[in-house]
Amino acid sequence: MPKIYFPDVQKIVYAGPDSTDPLTFKHYDPEALVEGKSMRDHLRFSASYWHAMVQGAADPFGGPTRPLPWTEASDPVQAARDTLDAMFEFLQKMDLGFWCFHDRDIAPELETLEATNAAFDEIVGLAEEKQRETGIKLLWGTANLFSHKRYMAGAGTSPCPEVFAHGAAQIKKALEATHRLGGAGYTFWGGREGYDTLLNTRLSAELGRFAKLLRLAVDHKRKIGFTGAFYIEPKPCEPTTFQYDNDAAACYAFLQHHGLEKEFSMNIEANHATLAGRAFEHELAYSAEHGILGSVDANRGDPMLGWDTDQFPTNLYDTTAAMGVILGMGGFTTGGLNFDARLRRQSVEPYDLFHAHIGGMDAFARGLKAAAKIRAEGRIEALVAERYRGWESELGRKIDAGEASLDSLFEHAVKADVGSAPAGRQERLENLLNEAI
Amino acid sequence: MPKIYFPDVQKIVYAGPDSTDPLTFKHYDPEALVEGKSMRDHLRFSASYWHAMVQGAADPFGGPTRPLPWTEASDPVQAARDTLDAMFEFLQKMDLGFWCFHDRDIAPELETLEATNAAFDEIVGLAEEKQRETGIKLLWGTANLFSHKRYMAGAGTSPCPEVFAHGAAQIKKALEATHRLGGAGYTFWGGREGYDTLLNTRLSAELGRFAKLLRLAVDHKRKIGFTGAFYIEPKPCEPTTFQYDNDAAACYAFLQHHGLEKEFSMNIEANHATLAGRAFEHELAYSAEHGILGSVDANRGDPMLGWDTDQFPTNLYDTTAAMGVILGMGGFTTGGLNFDARLRRQSVEPYDLFHAHIGGMDAFARGLKAAAKIRAEGRIEALVAERYRGWESELGRKIDAGEASLDSLFEHAVKADVGSAPAGRQERLENLLNEAI
Amino acid sequence: MPKIYFPDVQKIVYAGPDSTDPLTFKHYDPEALVEGKSMRDHLRFSASYWHAMVQGAADPFGGPTRPLPWTEASDPVQAARDTLDAMFEFLQKMDLGFWCFHDRDIAPELETLEATNAAFDEIVGLAEEKQRETGIKLLWGTANLFSHKRYMAGAGTSPCPEVFAHGAAQIKKALEATHRLGGAGYTFWGGREGYDTLLNTRLSAELGRFAKLLRLAVDHKRKIGFTGAFYIEPKPCEPTTFQYDNDAAACYAFLQHHGLEKEFSMNIEANHATLAGRAFEHELAYSAEHGILGSVDANRGDPMLGWDTDQFPTNLYDTTAAMGVILGMGGFTTGGLNFDARLRRQSVEPYDLFHAHIGGMDAFARGLKAAAKIRAEGRIEALVAERYRGWESELGRKIDAGEASLDSLFEHAVKADVGSAPAGRQERLENLLNEAI
Amino acid sequence: MPKIYFPDVQKIVYAGPDSTDPLTFKHYDPEALVEGKSMRDHLRFSASYWHAMVQGAADPFGGPTRPLPWTEASDPVQAARDTLDAMFEFLQKMDLGFWCFHDRDIAPELETLEATNAAFDEIVGLAEEKQRETGIKLLWGTANLFSHKRYMAGAGTSPCPEVFAHGAAQIKKALEATHRLGGAGYTFWGGREGYDTLLNTRLSAELGRFAKLLRLAVDHKRKIGFTGAFYIEPKPCEPTTFQYDNDAAACYAFLQHHGLEKEFSMNIEANHATLAGRAFEHELAYSAEHGILGSVDANRGDPMLGWDTDQFPTNLYDTTAAMGVILGMGGFTTGGLNFDARLRRQSVEPYDLFHAHIGGMDAFARGLKAAAKIRAEGRIEALVAERYRGWESELGRKIDAGEASLDSLFEHAVKADVGSAPAGRQERLENLLNEAI
Repeated sequence: MPKIYFPDVQKIVYAGPDSTDPLTFKHYDPEALVEGKSMRDHLRFSASYWHAMVQGAADPFGGPTRPLPWTEASDPVQAARDTLDAMFEFLQKMDLGFWCFHDRDIAPELETLEATNAAFDEIVGLAEEKQRETGIKLLWGTANLFSHKRYMAGAGTSPCPEVFAHGAAQIKKALEATHRLGGAGYTFWGGREGYDTLLNTRLSAELGRFAKLLRLAVDHKRKIGFTGAFYIEPKPCEPTTFQYDNDAAACYAFLQHHGLEKEFSMNIEANHATLAGRAFEHELAYSAEHGILGSVDANRGDPMLGWDTDQFPTNLYDTTAAMGVILGMGGFTTGGLNFDARLRRQSVEPYDLFHAHIGGMDAFARGLKAAAKIRAEGRIEALVAERYRGWESELGRKIDAGEASLDSLFEHAVKADVGSAPAGRQERLENLLNEAI
Repeated sequence: MPKIYFPDVQKIVYAGPDSTDPLTFKHYDPEALVEGKSMRDHLRFSASYWHAMVQGAADPFGGPTRPLPWTEASDPVQAARDTLDAMFEFLQKMDLGFWCFHDRDIAPELETLEATNAAFDEIVGLAEEKQRETGIKLLWGTANLFSHKRYMAGAGTSPCPEVFAHGAAQIKKALEATHRLGGAGYTFWGGREGYDTLLNTRLSAELGRFAKLLRLAVDHKRKIGFTGAFYIEPKPCEPTTFQYDNDAAACYAFLQHHGLEKEFSMNIEANHATLAGRAFEHELAYSAEHGILGSVDANRGDPMLGWDTDQFPTNLYDTTAAMGVILGMGGFTTGGLNFDARLRRQSVEPYDLFHAHIGGMDAFARGLKAAAKIRAEGRIEALVAERYRGWESELGRKIDAGEASLDSLFEHAVKADVGSAPAGRQERLENLLNEAI
Repeated sequence: MPKIYFPDVQKIVYAGPDSTDPLTFKHYDPEALVEGKSMRDHLRFSASYWHAMVQGAADPFGGPTRPLPWTEASDPVQAARDTLDAMFEFLQKMDLGFWCFHDRDIAPELETLEATNAAFDEIVGLAEEKQRETGIKLLWGTANLFSHKRYMAGAGTSPCPEVFAHGAAQIKKALEATHRLGGAGYTFWGGREGYDTLLNTRLSAELGRFAKLLRLAVDHKRKIGFTGAFYIEPKPCEPTTFQYDNDAAACYAFLQHHGLEKEFSMNIEANHATLAGRAFEHELAYSAEHGILGSVDANRGDPMLGWDTDQFPTNLYDTTAAMGVILGMGGFTTGGLNFDARLRRQSVEPYDLFHAHIGGMDAFARGLKAAAKIRAEGRIEALVAERYRGWESELGRKIDAGEASLDSLFEHAVKADVGSAPAGRQERLENLLNEAI
Repeated sequence: MPKIYFPDVQKIVYAGPDSTDPLTFKHYDPEALVEGKSMRDHLRFSASYWHAMVQGAADPFGGPTRPLPWTEASDPVQAARDTLDAMFEFLQKMDLGFWCFHDRDIAPELETLEATNAAFDEIVGLAEEKQRETGIKLLWGTANLFSHKRYMAGAGTSPCPEVFAHGAAQIKKALEATHRLGGAGYTFWGGREGYDTLLNTRLSAELGRFAKLLRLAVDHKRKIGFTGAFYIEPKPCEPTTFQYDNDAAACYAFLQHHGLEKEFSMNIEANHATLAGRAFEHELAYSAEHGILGSVDANRGDPMLGWDTDQFPTNLYDTTAAMGVILGMGGFTTGGLNFDARLRRQSVEPYDLFHAHIGGMDAFARGLKAAAKIRAEGRIEALVAERYRGWESELGRKIDAGEASLDSLFEHAVKADVGSAPAGRQERLENLLNEAI
């Protein structure tokens, strides 16, 4: 019998918007249908192993504050077993259908890689059982190629090929574990794939080797028969001064340059978007419109701060915009909404982890309902269609069909001499958005 | 005889670092050789017609402050003729070898496009003569597709095909004028090619049409036999909330997606880089390493401000880094250093235009000398080479040659178990940089 | 009979949240009571003359786009009369109780200051009549000391005393006009009171003269018997690189240093707050807690952009937070919510001005209701009270009463050795906030 | 005999600008005179105990990388003794005249406060000896009131009075130790004195108690006879979302509001300034012009990053501007240049600590020489004086003397009608600055 870590918490259930019980969902009603599909299937919520179970809310100016009773065993492998118990207790009580992990979250780094791998294999086996017992699935796995000091200058972009090899070895194991656990995807976050100063950096060589590492992973995926999705997760900086996977556009440039654009889609994180000076909605829309939106790390940053605060997502404008993009592309296939979000440093009570996830899940449920309402009403879409109506003219159709040239357009323009353009109506559209929230 | 607008200024000449005459070059010695090439040929300085001659230092909170005596004729075409005189007087006195223009800088927009084009043709003819008389050359031309209200929602990305056609017509004329004037290149700055809100925007449709417009320009270039370079100039925002040509990586993603990456290189502007949250050096290095660094808009922003201040470049760290990248790629071919920089609003004296350009030219001359010194000494390069030395090992060579797999690297890693990575030595490298400045 | 400028618009009325008529209020019900006071009296909405009537949506990259039919008379004084008609038609149809103006918005700058003042006096007289006829009141007046080129280096902080004198003369007139119109306040926005570079700036001298100008205004206020409030409006930058009235704290430091802190309170603008790297709520709370929150410029910025976008306020988090602070201080006395907000450049239809204000008024009405709900329920306040409960202990009371010393606290601490602090519960509080929105 | 930790490093000496030995000063010549005072006495360089000796270059994404052999003893008090040896070896070899520390840097936190204090007393005693032996002095001491979890919500602003008391107890000890060691000052950095969310914060209560804590420290200073300076160190955010000691202006507002402005001056840190959106030079100039510039934390941030990178200062523009302000106020009295700067995460070689400090010291030496040159030449000052000349007129003198009123200035302005203002000459001034660097 696993130990119980949250004895005072029952399974969180939907109680409706008027409930004053903080440990209920007010809006997330898992089986309720939206556009003919259950909320559960639309939203595909996932918790992050590292934030939920491993990190204790330390920051650069102070050590951990949050109690993690499941990590207290003196044997690190026993602590790993206990943590897995706590994670699945949490996932079940939270009614979360998915989880995500890094290799080094679920099992410790031991003296040798061999010993580390043995511990990892054991925990993966236990996780497999847990999944079977609970029906909870793996959204994606990944390898931590940034915490150990060997990775201080990156993994695929390390100035040292031994480090590259070590990273490759971790990817192999993490990918095989993800495959064994039936993961829907596998994520590459280039933790330290970037530079701190160009003074010591060979840019092309690093980028070329990073592409090579990704190519090796694609080859291995084929070899072992893993059919899940491969995601790149953009981030502009932190820990390095410049991260190569800066934003969705930078990743897309990189993937195309190295012929990898068919193999990877994006795992867009809200806070990474805003750190890059992009609206979360922009990164989602850019990716969706290029057919490369894979999955979402659901969190939020503070627009006044310049580092990754990984706060839980509660902003209804963000969740409505996000669900609008996701409904617009027909919903997730392999991806989902993974709460890559952590408790504030002063959130030291056991309930806080539940409050935080309830807040995020309710916020996305409201976003889903608002986005569906906007789509059903069609008032915004009607104004947009009117704005672009001109392209249905003969001139518009000719240009779109490739039947125009600068010369022919010149002839047209000299006669037409257009003086203005259709109205933008931004304020009216913003009012319609607010009516849906 | 053209009127003289700067009667008190003689041609600016090199007087050496000890000169206290503000109207001399202290460092830019045009014929001095650096790495076997004259400074003049390395730096290929250019002035911008719009900033030097047309704008009067207005800002969103107040009208112009700077006297522009050459624009005072009541007939706008006469004012355009006078302005051309002033520009070439300035270029000669400043010893600048190149100039750049927008179509609407050099000739006015009149009642009809036909009348506008007639005036434009006249001024282009006069400019041709001026070039012949002075030996001054055109670095690049461009079309202004953002100031007129018809372009309020973009040109190639307008929701209205008539506007697209008008933009195409302007590009045709500006491109033909650039060809006639022997321009070394032609620049596309997507002034309002972007969006203010995603609520009213069809992203893919806009991007597709923007690519189409660029493709039409490529076709026309071929048709008329123009062999100069085509540049895209990245900028992240301003005037629109999101500009599609965000940064070099976003442009490169776009060009590749639409099969245009062989036809365009980048015109990197320093202030646009910093607005995008990138070091100027980063944008240059990224472009150079991808073979798409074409030309440079030499200015600087204020790192504490969030809009395009277009200050004259005086920061020696920036100019040294820039010239390091440019020397590293073998120097400019068609491109050059165009001062896309404007006087501060309180710089209202006729001399100020000269002080400003002297400052920029001297700063880049110092940057050129410092970068050449760093290259000649080889101390930084030696430390970098040492850092990457590991890649000359058998393991490194195998990975680079594509002879490794995740499986083979796993086998290696289990045996090797690397614990750290080569030192970065950033502080030492920064000291060496400072020794060169 | 004044000309009618918005013939197709009827007076905007409350139609409830289910109304689909865009030209109605969905939430702002002027006479509805909240905490025993009408929404109208809580919110004290005002329109800005400059944004509503004068500016045509130009930006640094292009001229105006928005038609302003009331400005078309060739005689500038007639245009000023027409504009006043249009403004009051707008205010009445919009059901706005207040307006705000700069001296140069309502009447033109003519050849001499004398002529300018004569035109100004005439328009002020007409405005007096309009106010009498409509019952609409003046929230505050101000003088434009930043647009004319004489003010390029500031007014009170100009390096030229003649400019200081000119600014003083404008303040005298604008203050007297505000008095005549029964204005509830007068605002000082230090348009160019700041510096572009410290290289040419005598900081103390400028700050001292700025304080002197404010002191002269206080003296004049007393002399003429004006009993309205004096507001300082903080802004961190733009147009200058550094504005002395940076944020509320910088203003408060300045006012205290010069003994003016009893004479001025803050007019907090949302977009100015975010440009300063502050949440709007922070600037409001800081001011309220120091007893210096006077009035509010209700707009919003784009958190991804670094300039003053002056968008209409529609974010419900902002309006809820703002109304929470305002209810918390007992409501406005002389101040109100002035829409210092402008239409987007593509909002070129006559209806847009109404849509924009409806959106802002409804957003603040919702914010008011949400803030009142939070206060009525008391759930957030209860958690906060619990957090600070320790201060009701003997130790807390002693410290608060000034009965402790480092020595006595040392004695206590050695015995007590406290290991942690009360929980922050941020996520739970954020959930409660979302429940109210 | 203390163990030798840097056996391969000799004392760093001045070798002149042509030296290629990286372990020499190229510009810092301690005994060379500038404006009649030695460089050593101008610059008063100090090293930080925490960055030099304690922290191992961990970041939020990975553990320490840098070897710290002096911390390896299993007994933490022995490790503290060894670290003190290493620090003084380093200070001597680096030819640094001053050091700075937090209480918890030099001695460990043990089971009880009593035990902690005993260990602290022992180490302070050893430090006293070291100072006597070497002649090295204490620039300032401080207490770490932010790392331990009890301080997760601040010390003076904690919601718990027990934590306030514990902080007070630490301040008492640290202040007494500073006094015993003859420290020239004592610094208050409000590590977590701020808030993460206003939802759980009582602003006025927290600010009032923070002021109370500072007042208690002032009382204790008097009681024990400590005559050194008290510094506040502004920082805008990090670790908290909003730090009360935001920037110099916010601190000055706070100090004045609580009647503490005579007791504290500022310890300005370069990176904290840029995080606050201020130029380093601005914060220095603002403080100096208000008579509250006490000391300087010499480091630099990366303008493209939003967190405290604490890089070593190498930018000659920053060091020239800083030394210009410091020379302008007559030099430091109690303050100095403390390298609150840390090695990059990849700087893992023992020499790196020396390279880093050499770079910073040479950069400030060059800044000192450049600033002195600018002052000696007087060319910038002459242009500034000319710009403000108007204030020597009768009008200017009257205004400055308080003999003007709005009425009298109105009379003047109506007659004078000034149309412009003196030129700013920013570009010319920037050229003169570059000539000095």
